[in-house]
Amino acid sequence: MENLYVIKIGGNIIDDEHLLTSFLKKFAAIKSKKILVHGGGKLATRMAEKLGIPQQMVDGRRITDTETLKIVIMVYAGYINKHIVAQLQSLNCNAAGISGADGNSIRCHKREIAGIDYGFAGDIDEVNSTWLNQLLDNGLALVVAPITHDGKNQLLNTNADTIAQEIARAMASFFDTTLVFGFEKPGVLLDMENEDSVIKNLRLDFYGELKEAKKIFAGMIPKLDNAFAAIRQGVKKVIIGKGEELDQLITGKSGTTISHE
Amino acid sequence: MENLYVIKIGGNIIDDEHLLTSFLKKFAAIKSKKILVHGGGKLATRMAEKLGIPQQMVDGRRITDTETLKIVIMVYAGYINKHIVAQLQSLNCNAAGISGADGNSIRCHKREIAGIDYGFAGDIDEVNSTWLNQLLDNGLALVVAPITHDGKNQLLNTNADTIAQEIARAMASFFDTTLVFGFEKPGVLLDMENEDSVIKNLRLDFYGELKEAKKIFAGMIPKLDNAFAAIRQGVKKVIIGKGEELDQLITGKSGTTISHE
Repeated sequence: MENLYVIKIGGNIIDDEHLLTSFLKKFAAIKSKKILVHGGGKLATRMAEKLGIPQQMVDGRRITDTETLKIVIMVYAGYINKHIVAQLQSLNCNAAGISGADGNSIRCHKREIAGIDYGFAGDIDEVNSTWLNQLLDNGLALVVAPITHDGKNQLLNTNADTIAQEIARAMASFFDTTLVFGFEKPGVLLDMENEDSVIKNLRLDFYGELKEAKKIFAGMIPKLDNAFAAIRQGVKKVIIGKGEELDQLITGKSGTTISHE
Repeated sequence: MENLYVIKIGGNIIDDEHLLTSFLKKFAAIKSKKILVHGGGKLATRMAEKLGIPQQMVDGRRITDTETLKIVIMVYAGYINKHIVAQLQSLNCNAAGISGADGNSIRCHKREIAGIDYGFAGDIDEVNSTWLNQLLDNGLALVVAPITHDGKNQLLNTNADTIAQEIARAMASFFDTTLVFGFEKPGVLLDMENEDSVIKNLRLDFYGELKEAKKIFAGMIPKLDNAFAAIRQGVKKVIIGKGEELDQLITGKSGTTISHE
């Protein structure tokens, strides 16, 4: 099967013009089919502050209320998405930016759990792999903003890690799919204080042992659980490491590679 | 040839939630292939005011400076575009929103005329009809935001009337193309004070006579000159009238129809 890369980058790259350009050059240079999923970064928070919109926090989580939703739609699906696309075009990489509403590409429902207010947060029901395949076949790299919809005229804020994982999973029937999570650290570390302690290859049994021995940083566990879920769901490899080292991540020269073998 | 509708709406519809919904229902009901081009509306101006960004005016024209450009990208390609797409999805009309950077669909250059500062305004060089055709063939209605790019990593603010006209012109080789300009008035009026004085059919010779007799409102002349230019370039019909009467405009029951015959 043909290769497909699904690559997620977060705020540490999006907020740093220099890192973003360096990342996009490496992304543009990938010859295989490719999908970039971007998170939000600090611009939405700065916009909300400037507009005097208070950020509601509940139990340490930021709540996407009506006014915050407007801002994240503007910043994620508008400003960040179109800037990335324009920059890729200038690098001779023909790209198209989409939200989950476009082409009904990511259908979600509003997260509703009794007693907990998540605001306008979307949980994914379905990725429209048919249309994503058509776009890739048109020779386009895709740039996906973390804004989805529910089919009932409600746009929703959706976690970019989850979008990347669900896209990779939906595309795994058509491609040898590699999912790359760009990250602040050079990979999964054995010792959080030592950036040289990157675990090069992580398989399920070893991950189990490390978890047992409490050698995995608690904050990494949901990310890694998701990575192993993606592998079970047919994704060939998950690579975690510094987004700006994309070229070295996909050749296995840096980062942590999670796979069956 | 198959029919294609290219329909432009402006601020009077975009800024009025009720009119917008009514318009989108009629747009969704069109069975032929269709492209919606939207302008900006007042939200960008309100955002600029709230953010304390002064609007530069030169000779009565608003200048798209760097800060204003950021806002129009967010508002036009983000907020307005994605809200229209989400609403169309809820009306069972599978739509995709694009800017001119996406899929390199509208390539522009920054307007440069010695001595005049137009800011980040784009003049159109080329419409990528190949990709627009692929998207239409995927069964999608297209929703185009008036933001384009120059291929050199510069996004540009571009007049939505001109985008609609250039898309219609580029698609005229593939479709029997009808270009609809949504407008505040019910059509081209013989008497500006009388909304019942709509000219039902306007051909070039009659337009010449009316211009000669100064019976055409000066503000309409650029719009009509563009309409006749589109007809010369292969567009089959141009219809001007109230966007919210879309169903009646395309059946010729209201509005002004401009054509060869």
